This record gives sequence, C-alpha cells and structure tokens, in this order.
Amino acid sequence: MEGRQNPLRNDGKTIRLDYTNMMAGSIGGGRGITPEEIEGLVPRVSAIAADIDVKRETGEWGFYALPYDMGALEEVNRMATSFLDRCDDFVVLGIGGSALGGIALFNALCHPLHNLLSRADRGGNPRIFFIDNVDPVTFKSLLDFLNPEKTVFNIVTKSGSTSETVSQFLIVRQMLIDRLGRKSAGEHIVVTTGAGKNRLRTIAGEEGYALLTIPENVAGRFTVFSPVGLFPAAVSGIDIDDLLSGARYADERCRTDRLWQNPAYLGGALHYLANVNKGLSINIMMPYSDALLQVAYWFRQLWAESLSKADTVSGERINVGQTPVVALGATDQHSQLQLYTEGPCNKMITFLLVENSGVSVPIPPQSGDFAYLGGHGLEELIKVEARATRLALTEAGRSNMSLIIPEINPFTVGQLLFLLEVQTVFTGCLYDVDPMVQPGVEASKRHIHGMMGRSGPDKERTEKGRYIV
Amino acid sequence: MEGRQNPLRNDGKTIRLDYTNMMAGSIGGGRGITPEEIEGLVPRVSAIAADIDVKRETGEWGFYALPYDMGALEEVNRMATSFLDRCDDFVVLGIGGSALGGIALFNALCHPLHNLLSRADRGGNPRIFFIDNVDPVTFKSLLDFLNPEKTVFNIVTKSGSTSETVSQFLIVRQMLIDRLGRKSAGEHIVVTTGAGKNRLRTIAGEEGYALLTIPENVAGRFTVFSPVGLFPAAVSGIDIDDLLSGARYADERCRTDRLWQNPAYLGGALHYLANVNKGLSINIMMPYSDALLQVAYWFRQLWAESLSKADTVSGERINVGQTPVVALGATDQHSQLQLYTEGPCNKMITFLLVENSGVSVPIPPQSGDFAYLGGHGLEELIKVEARATRLALTEAGRSNMSLIIPEINPFTVGQLLFLLEVQTVFTGCLYDVDPMVQPGVEASKRHIHGMMGRSGPDKERTEKGRYIV
Repeated sequence: MEGRQNPLRNDGKTIRLDYTNMMAGSIGGGRGITPEEIEGLVPRVSAIAADIDVKRETGEWGFYALPYDMGALEEVNRMATSFLDRCDDFVVLGIGGSALGGIALFNALCHPLHNLLSRADRGGNPRIFFIDNVDPVTFKSLLDFLNPEKTVFNIVTKSGSTSETVSQFLIVRQMLIDRLGRKSAGEHIVVTTGAGKNRLRTIAGEEGYALLTIPENVAGRFTVFSPVGLFPAAVSGIDIDDLLSGARYADERCRTDRLWQNPAYLGGALHYLANVNKGLSINIMMPYSDALLQVAYWFRQLWAESLSKADTVSGERINVGQTPVVALGATDQHSQLQLYTEGPCNKMITFLLVENSGVSVPIPPQSGDFAYLGGHGLEELIKVEARATRLALTEAGRSNMSLIIPEINPFTVGQLLFLLEVQTVFTGCLYDVDPMVQPGVEASKRHIHGMMGRSGPDKERTEKGRYIV
Repeated sequence: MEGRQNPLRNDGKTIRLDYTNMMAGSIGGGRGITPEEIEGLVPRVSAIAADIDVKRETGEWGFYALPYDMGALEEVNRMATSFLDRCDDFVVLGIGGSALGGIALFNALCHPLHNLLSRADRGGNPRIFFIDNVDPVTFKSLLDFLNPEKTVFNIVTKSGSTSETVSQFLIVRQMLIDRLGRKSAGEHIVVTTGAGKNRLRTIAGEEGYALLTIPENVAGRFTVFSPVGLFPAAVSGIDIDDLLSGARYADERCRTDRLWQNPAYLGGALHYLANVNKGLSINIMMPYSDALLQVAYWFRQLWAESLSKADTVSGERINVGQTPVVALGATDQHSQLQLYTEGPCNKMITFLLVENSGVSVPIPPQSGDFAYLGGHGLEELIKVEARATRLALTEAGRSNMSLIIPEINPFTVGQLLFLLEVQTVFTGCLYDVDPMVQPGVEASKRHIHGMMGRSGPDKERTEKGRYIV
C-alpha cells in the first residue's frame, strides 16, 4: 500500500492533490476514508485503465486526442489572426458545453476587467461576450449595443441544431444581412460545428462562412481543447499552445494505472468512495481565486452530465450522481460556510488553491484593533482564509481535499482541466455508467419541439386543477 | 381544507406561487406532498405566527420594519444625489450580506451591459462594481483601472470589523490619501455600518466620512432593504421608493396566519415537508431570466445561513439544512438537467418565471429543419423552455414549484425578496432553529485571526503526515 508521502515540493508547474482531509486520520465520525478502502479499488483499476486505453486508441473517447491535434491548433491560430482586424467585439453564441469551456478559459486567463479596458490595454484583442442563454432582454441589449461592422459572431453547436443557438444564429444572420447586406454578412460569422453533415454546416457552406470543426467523437462537455474552447481563447489573446502543452502534461501524469500515483484516478476514487461508502452526495468545488470560478462552473457540467445516470451500462437502475456545487473563497465563507460546518454531513469539498498569485497588494501597517491585518497583503490574507476554513471544516468532520495550483497560466489551466476530465471519466467507470451520454435531457427537448409547434401534443396546455396562491 | 383553486389571474403586479408539482397529484413515488400533510402543520402555524408577531413588534427581528423606514429612504436618496457628480465609478466593498442584496438589485434592475454604456445611456449614473472578495489580482486590477478623483467607495460592514472588508478599506484609504491628499480622501468614502459603537464607525467620525447606518437588530443577510442594499441601488438609478413599496405589498400578503392563503408560509411549509418527510435535501432555485440570477445567489445565502444549524433553539442536536443550489434557465438545461432528471431523487426546484419580458426579439420565418423556430420570438422560446422542462421533470417524478413574476420592475423585485425573507424565517420556525445566528462560521474566523498573528496557535502549521499526489 502506497500513498502517505512527504508533500511534493512546488516545482512551479505541477498541480498536486492533497487529500489528507478525506482520510480517516483527519476526519472522524466514520466518514473518513481508510487506505484499505482505496486499496480495495486497485483490482478494478487495471481493468478500467485497459478499457479506457481501448476507447482512447479506437477513438471512441476522442477527447484524449485533442491536446495532440496540432493541425487544429494551427488552424485556430490562423483563423484567430485573420479575424482580428475586423473585430472590436467577439460574440460566442452557444450553450452548455459549447460555451462553458471558453468562458472558463477567458475568466482564468484574461484581465478581470478585459471588456472595460482600451483595445491597447487588452493587448490588441477584442472585447469578448459569451451569450449562453436565450434571455430576450440580454440578447436585445447586446444586439442594440454592438456595431455589426466591427463584430464577429462565433456560432457554436456540435449538432448544428441546438434550438437556443440556432435561434440566436437566425436572428443575428438576419440582422447582419439587414445592416451590412447579404455579401458582407457572411464575413462576420464563424461557425464551429460537428464534422458530420448537419443543417448549420450546410448553411455555412452555402453562405460561405468560415468554419471550424468539432470531431464527432468528442462529447460537448469535453470540447474545451477543440476549436470550441480554443478559438475564443485565441481571439482573447490566450496562448493556446501552452494550454495544450499543459493538457498533455496532465495526460502523462494521469495515464498510469497505478492508482496511488495517478492524481486523476485517485481523485475519482475518493469521490466515488465518499459518495458510495460515506453518503457524501454533494460535491462542492471551491476555488480561492476569482479567476478559477468559471472553471468550477465548467466542472459542474462535466460532473453532472457525465456521472448522473439512471442506469448502468449493463442496464441496472441506479439513479446515481453527486450534485456538483460551486462556491467561491473567501466570499462564500460569508454565505455557505454555516451550512458546510453545521448542516448535514452529506458534502465533500474540493478547494482550488493558488500558491503564487503573482501580485502584491499590501495592507498598510496599523495599530489597535486592525494591527493583526497591517503589514500583511491580500495575497496572504486569501491564502490564510483558505487554510483557516480548511482547518475549521476538518475539525468539524467535513471531508475536503485540495488541488494545489502553483500559479495561474495557460499551462496550469490546461493541466487542471484535462486532469478533471480524466478524473470524471474514471469516476464514471467506477460507477459503471457511460460518461459520454445524456439521455435525461431528451424529454425536455421533445416537449420544446412540441410546444413550439414542431410536433406532438402539449400536455401541459390541457392540465387542470392547479395549486396556486 | 383549502388550497385547490383556480389559477390567479395575472394582475400585472402580484407574484404567485404555483405549487402543483410539489403535490401528490402530480408527483409519484411517494414524494408528492398531500394536502393532509400541509393541513397537519396548520395547528403549529398560529403559534409560530404569534411568535413572529412578538419578535416583530419588540424589534427583535428588525428586518420587518425596514420597508416602513421612510427616514432611511430619504437619507439614502439624498446621499445618492449628493455623491452623483463626483462619481464616475462607484465601488462597493463588502462581503456576504453586505454585498449580495446590492448585487441582486443591480443585476435585476439595471441594464445588462450597464458598465459598458456611456454615462448618458446609463441615465447619468456611474459604473457600479461590487468587490466581495479579497482576491489580490481582482483588487489590484480594479485599483489600477479606477481614477480615484472620480470614484466613490462604499465600505459596508455591520460589525465594522470584517477582516476582508477592513483590509480592502485600509488599502483604499491609503491609496486615496497618497493620490488625493488626506483632506480630499474622505470625500470619496461612504461607510455603511452598524448603529452601535465599532472601530470603523469611530474612524468614519474622526476622518469625516459620510455615514449610513444599519440597524443593529437586522442580521446581515436580511439587510437588502436597509442602506446596505438601498444606497448602491439608488446610486445605480433604481427607484428604491417602488422597491420598498413592493416589499410592503409582500408584507401585507405574507402576514396572515392562514397557511393556505400565505404564499411565504406555504412556500416554507412545502420546503420543510419536502426535506423532512420526503428527503429532498437539495433546494434548487432556477430563474428563467438572466436578470434574476443574482436574486438566486442572494437567496442562497439567506437560506443556507438562516436554516443550516447544528442545534435547535432548545439545544437538540439536529444538523439540519437543505443545501441551496443556483441554476439558470434555459442555460443549465444543457448542464444540470441530466442530473435533475436521472440523478438521485433528493432535490426540489423553485423556478422563477417572468410572464412579460417587455421586449420582442423575433426569429425570422424559416423553411425546412428550422421552420418550427421561425416566426416565434426569444421571449416565447425561453418561456416554452421553462414549461417543457417543468413538464419533463414532473413526468420524471421530480418535485418543483414556480414563483410567477408578472414582470421585472422595482415593485415586483421588492415583493419577491421580501416574500423570500418571510418564507425563510417561517421555515426556520418550523425547524425550531434561530434563523438570525451563524455560530458555525466562528471557528474559521478564529483561525484566521490566529494565523494572521492576532492570537492563538496555528494548528495546521504543525500538522504532519499528509496524503498528497
């Protein structure tokens, strides 16, 4: 049995997983995990790793290949450059997996006030907007605000038929034609869609839009390293070469079938044991960094859609799935910590901790009541808050682990996202569910089509006897 | 027994609660609530309502009085006007309850692109920033960006000693003194703090800052109708008279002790029964409106801190508390719906539905695959998505209710927030916990003080034997 080690040193580039406070040595009340419980999974790991290798080599799980696709990388970089000068504003129209990866990268790696800066202070890059909803007020406000002559719209939908994104596209296309004429309109549209035949791809061909391709063997929520995530990132000025380099580095570390050495597999095993053996049905991701907040939202989709399944692959009804929850440190100490400390013991927390923020924001020296703050810096305070909260939660018997990120840059962010993808896939294998499907969203889609008049009855229209006050 | 009624008509101003899909007639699997279960709470309601009336009349629960405090309203309006011309940028420094109410109002009632508009297009109002974290990168970026001569900082902390807010204040004060001189610096600071003696209030007096007062009998998370929420709202150009008028209207509706007639009490009873009788330990609020997203985050603190308690008021150990979760429609249909439909049956959802968005965003007529979308509008699509998702979840046996909001304006938003406050307080009474305290956050605060060198040992410094990979 392996595992108890001296802390790995901060080498400036490697993300480490500290799971001390998941373990029985730290967490009482029967909710700590024992090394024996982890060891008990080892026999399953070889088989799972072999199965993953097959799915990877056959291309069934295509996301593994994305960080190695240098052709796509070059094409994205080339296209980003070619659109830069016609583009003061860059608008991504997409929803779910078509938006969350790009949002996560933008939030993590661009200036916090990017859209308010001058173009020069943005490094010559455009303002960036992700419109991942069909809220009519938001959409109208944005269209009224933009200058279509200097705006590029990136339409992102793998199927080419997502109702929300297609609706946005149809409105924008008409607006561009009305304002710029049919010939120029197409120069302001980039379509990112699946490789197979679909209606949007056909339109893009007919109307001469620039086109980027999503491999069909990559599920939407695993597309961050495809043009879905890479193109908006490149337009934002993010070094996507470094990003993919980080993803490949995570792949190297997370490929071994030695459970105790693989941070993604070990992370997955801890989540699985926490849920199945300890009843921790809520999975909180809590970055202590504003820049990583949207990584947590990206992960929330990844975790929820991949692992929440009614049935196993062999058809057993299990209705499984931890509920992912996003919290932000230190902010949510003043919102959710009361719940995490005193509420039901049904949660685990993964902290995202940044070791070096790269800035210094000193608090001036003080006397009196505030002397304990003076002379420190905000960069120190936020780390102390994380340590203090971790300690308080551990003392209260609340399971937690930490992903320790040396600093935030494209390499570490690429590493983090890929590690979390592998963790998710591995956890799905432990549950024996298919992490790449989402059958539970079909009923809602069917009803939408019915209610919009495509087909089928609208049952709710005939519903009677409501309770209302 | 009451309750089954014809749907209330949309009168253009009244928020209605549709709880049909919480009930056994709609939800199977033993998770639907029966009218008899609700009726079973009626005997407790008179006693609870009487207790609430006492706490309200004695001023123990001061938030009930806020919508009636015309003096505070006038002072806030006067001060907002007086600061307007020295203020291109208005920055709120606060955390938790000191920020969330203001953020919710700003998000709900200002233009979605407020900070990107010209001052004229913002109605003459400044840009608004809420800095509710101590992230050093965010903070430094903002300070570097702002012009201190044209910026006003609103420091909000009821205790006057919140570590995060005090740290921000100390940094900003020094920056203002360095840049503008000691005399002018004070003209750029407005302190909002508790009525009692505290260190920040003393400094404000000594240095001549403008001062707004939070009544001591209002818990931080219930301060949205105090100057905490009202001042940033007024500076943003929100009609706070209408806001309070809406709160008073909700108070009228939510004061009756007739359970079946009181939307706040009935909402609370349904949450309580769902958790205690049906095991629905996760409480999702899902607005189908970008503008209401931050209302859901405000509610998330209100619900978590007020109701998650280790002990009842009589000292019984219960570790109670639903976990509040925020989701956004239609966006999160593409992120969380798979979990909500197929995952464990441990959740309930409250939809926030807006009947009239006030805008029209038509999708051009189409033939072929997209014909079902053409001729409709986004304002219609988002409502159809909500109906379809509600129907799909109900068919899958997932409990849900809807707060139906005629349209978004200061009156309805005031109504909504006050209704949710009363619902929370009433639910706390059903659990027999004190909704106004948060003892679970003290350990973390103690550790922060210790680690920052104020006092006490830092246990984690001596921790040995970590698990890390």
